[in-house]
Amino acid sequence: MSQPRFDVVAIGNAIVDVMAPCEDALVAQLEMAKGGMTLVDTPRAHALYEAMGPAREISGGSAANTLAGIAALGGRCAFIGQVADDQLGEVFAHDIRAAGVDFGTPPRRHDPSTARCLIFVTPDGQRTMNTYLGASQYLPAAALDEAMIADAAVLYLEGYLWDPEEPRHAMRKAIAAARNAGRKVAFSLSDAFVIARHGDDFRELIASGEIDLLFANEAELAALTGLEDFNAGVAELAPQVPVLVVTRGASGAVAVSADERAEVPAHHVAQVIDTTGAGDLFAAGFLFGHVRGKSLAECLKMGAICAAEIISHYGARPEADLGELVG
Amino acid sequence: MSQPRFDVVAIGNAIVDVMAPCEDALVAQLEMAKGGMTLVDTPRAHALYEAMGPAREISGGSAANTLAGIAALGGRCAFIGQVADDQLGEVFAHDIRAAGVDFGTPPRRHDPSTARCLIFVTPDGQRTMNTYLGASQYLPAAALDEAMIADAAVLYLEGYLWDPEEPRHAMRKAIAAARNAGRKVAFSLSDAFVIARHGDDFRELIASGEIDLLFANEAELAALTGLEDFNAGVAELAPQVPVLVVTRGASGAVAVSADERAEVPAHHVAQVIDTTGAGDLFAAGFLFGHVRGKSLAECLKMGAICAAEIISHYGARPEADLGELVG
Repeated sequence: MSQPRFDVVAIGNAIVDVMAPCEDALVAQLEMAKGGMTLVDTPRAHALYEAMGPAREISGGSAANTLAGIAALGGRCAFIGQVADDQLGEVFAHDIRAAGVDFGTPPRRHDPSTARCLIFVTPDGQRTMNTYLGASQYLPAAALDEAMIADAAVLYLEGYLWDPEEPRHAMRKAIAAARNAGRKVAFSLSDAFVIARHGDDFRELIASGEIDLLFANEAELAALTGLEDFNAGVAELAPQVPVLVVTRGASGAVAVSADERAEVPAHHVAQVIDTTGAGDLFAAGFLFGHVRGKSLAECLKMGAICAAEIISHYGARPEADLGELVG
Repeated sequence: MSQPRFDVVAIGNAIVDVMAPCEDALVAQLEMAKGGMTLVDTPRAHALYEAMGPAREISGGSAANTLAGIAALGGRCAFIGQVADDQLGEVFAHDIRAAGVDFGTPPRRHDPSTARCLIFVTPDGQRTMNTYLGASQYLPAAALDEAMIADAAVLYLEGYLWDPEEPRHAMRKAIAAARNAGRKVAFSLSDAFVIARHGDDFRELIASGEIDLLFANEAELAALTGLEDFNAGVAELAPQVPVLVVTRGASGAVAVSADERAEVPAHHVAQVIDTTGAGDLFAAGFLFGHVRGKSLAECLKMGAICAAEIISHYGARPEADLGELVG
C-alpha cells in the first residue's frame, strides 16, 4: 500500500463556539448539566444566548479541533463537515483552512444556519456546552470524498455526530470506505450523554471490529461499560479494541494495546483557564504520534502536552506552536 | 438641570473585530500601515481575510469599547450605531447589551453586512486594523434618539465615524442636540489617517467651541496641530478645548484644563498581548471619572488602569472587573 496522502481525515460537526465566562450560579439557574454537552433547539439557544455575558466566537467542533491540532503538529489533514452559506459558515471554513486543514464540503444553501455551541466557562475552567446543530446535522453521505478517505492513514470520527441521522449514515459509509482501503478507524466517544443515547450502536461497532483506536474519558468509559470502577472498565473494554485511550483529566491518561500498556500524568499547567477542547487536543497529540509510529507512552505524552496547551487559554484551537512544545 | 439618566451616550461604528496574531513580515507583505486603521472595500477585505491565520471574533468598535468599559465601571450608557440584519449584527448587539449598555438602533435590512475589522496583531502587541465599514456607514440621522442624548451627561463621538457621510451628518445633529440640552460633548480623534482626511472639520469643530473633552494620542496630536514636538502640540491645542487628554502609549498620558494640568505614567502590565482598544479603554476610565466629578489626575489614573487591563489580553472589551481594579 502506498504512503497515504493524508495522515488523518475526520468527519465531525462544523461548529463555531460562542464562549463566555460565567459563575456557577448561572449554570444552576439555567438548569444546564455542568461539564456536559446538551443539544438545544432554536428557542433554547436564544434563551441561553440572552442569558450569556459578552462572548467571543472561536471556531470549534470536536473533530475539527483535533485536526487543527494535528495540522499544527505538522500532520496532513482533511475535514468533512456541514456549514451553511452564512457568516458563521465562512468563519468556520476560514479558520480550519487557515489552520492548514483541507476542507472542501460545500456550504448548504438553506436554513438552518451554521451550528454553534454556547459554552459557559465557570471559574474552575470547566465548560458546559449547549449545541445548536443547525446545518451540521444535514451532512449528507454524498458529501463524502471516498477516495480521500481511502487515501488517509486514519479516519477519525466524533461520537457527537452520531445524534443526527444523516451524518450517522455518512459515518457508517465512511467507516466502510476506510476499512475497504485497509485504513484505520479512530472513534471518540465524545460525551457520556451521547453514549446514553447511542451506546448500543457504539458497542456494536466495537464488537464487530470496526474501531481500531477508541478514545474515551472516565465518564464515557463508565457509561459505555456500565462499570463505575475505572480499572474494571479498562479491563473490560481494552480487549475489544486494538488501541484504547482513556483520559482522566487532572489524573492523566492510560493507553492499552494487545502488547503494551502505558500511563501518563497530566502535563503541568500554571492556570487552567478553559477546558474546552482538552479531549480533542489530547486526541490530536496521540493520533499524530500514532501515525508517526511512536510508542503508546510517547503518543500519550504528546497528547498530554497538546491538552495542556489548550486548557491554558480560551478556545479549543491551539495558539502556541504545538510542534515546538512536543519537541 | 435634573440628574441625567445616562452618564454617557456614544455614537460609533458597530463593528465585530476579527483578530489573529501574525508576524511582522505578513504586515509588510500585505502592505498594511502597521499600527494604523485603513478602510477597506469588499475585495480587499476578502484578500486580507484569506491571508489571515485562524482568527477569533470579538465585538469591537472604538466608542462601543469605551461604553463597555464605562458600564463595567458602573456607569449608565447607551450606544447608537448601525448593524445589518445578519449573524455578526446579532453578535454585536448581544455583546454590547450583555456588557450592560443600552442599544436600540434597529438593524438594517439590506446589504451590506455588519462592519468588521480585520486586526493583525504582531508579536509586539501592536495592532494593524483594516475596517470594512459595511452597514455601519449607513447610520441615518433619523436613528438618533435626541431625547436620550439630551438625557446624558456626556455625548461621546469617535472620529472614525467622520469618514462616511450619513453618520457624519448624524453626529453633527447629535452635537447640536447635546449642546442645546446643556450637555458636554467628548470627541476622540481616533486615528492620524482620519485626521489627514478630516482635519479641517475637526479643527473647525474645536474652534467653534463644540467640543468639551478632546481625546488624542501623540500621532493624532501631531497630525491635528502640524507640530511634531509633543509639548508644543499640547501648548497649541490645550487652550482651544476645556479638557484635552493626550495618551502617549508606554509613556503614560497628560490631561490639561484651564486650571489644572496632570500627568500619569502607564500602568504596569506584565505582558502586552494586544494593544487593540487601549485608547478606547483609557477614554472609558477617564470619562467615568469625569462624570463622577474626579480631578484630572484621578481621571487619568482610572484611564491608565483600564487601558492596562485591555492590553493584557486579546480583544478590546474588558475581561476583568474594572470597578474592582480602579478601586
